[in-house]
Amino acid sequence: MVTMLEVTDVTTRGGSCCAPLVKEPLGRSDAAELAATLKALADPARLRLLSIVASSEGQEACVCDLTDPIGLSQPTVSHHLKILTEAGFLTRSKRGTWAYFALVPDALEKVGHILLDQ
Amino acid sequence: MVTMLEVTDVTTRGGSCCAPLVKEPLGRSDAAELAATLKALADPARLRLLSIVASSEGQEACVCDLTDPIGLSQPTVSHHLKILTEAGFLTRSKRGTWAYFALVPDALEKVGHILLDQ
Repeated sequence: MVTMLEVTDVTTRGGSCCAPLVKEPLGRSDAAELAATLKALADPARLRLLSIVASSEGQEACVCDLTDPIGLSQPTVSHHLKILTEAGFLTRSKRGTWAYFALVPDALEKVGHILLDQ
Repeated sequence: MVTMLEVTDVTTRGGSCCAPLVKEPLGRSDAAELAATLKALADPARLRLLSIVASSEGQEACVCDLTDPIGLSQPTVSHHLKILTEAGFLTRSKRGTWAYFALVPDALEKVGHILLDQ
């Protein structure tokens, strides 16, 4: 059964917090939420990790393949991956010895649409 | 005379630093540049200021009209506006007693397009 709530959900850009910045002033709580999301992105190592995962086959990568290209220790890489996961940009799954991180494409799109007039 | 360089400039999305995150891994210097830009955005007061300016008539606002809605002191508001101006999101012009801040729409669009697959 398709409820009214489901229909509404489909039309709200997947639950993004905010209207585009150029459309209307942001409220206090929306601004806090968006700032926290942007803060998770606003780090060179995290941006590079996200772009490596996003451009990998299937938009997924093993943590074992992320340490070398970034040139940071594995604990540091894991710390950054945790922040990206908690912010909703990545999902983590464990297979065998290693953790795999996959992109959540909608998360980047939500932020992009808030910045664009769309 | 239209040189090859000018043609290239026109096709690079207005000088944005980076290809979309999901297209290819970000290089070290591009990641540092994008992180600095996102950091300028990643603050609740700055996001609210930017959205007020952006949704004002002519996408411009007097600093005298920005203090009350944000609920911060004028020096604090001016500090945030300076960060947004230095990051290229706003331009500042002085007319009479007051400073006016105008949106640079391209700046938000550049960041938005890097986050989107566009």
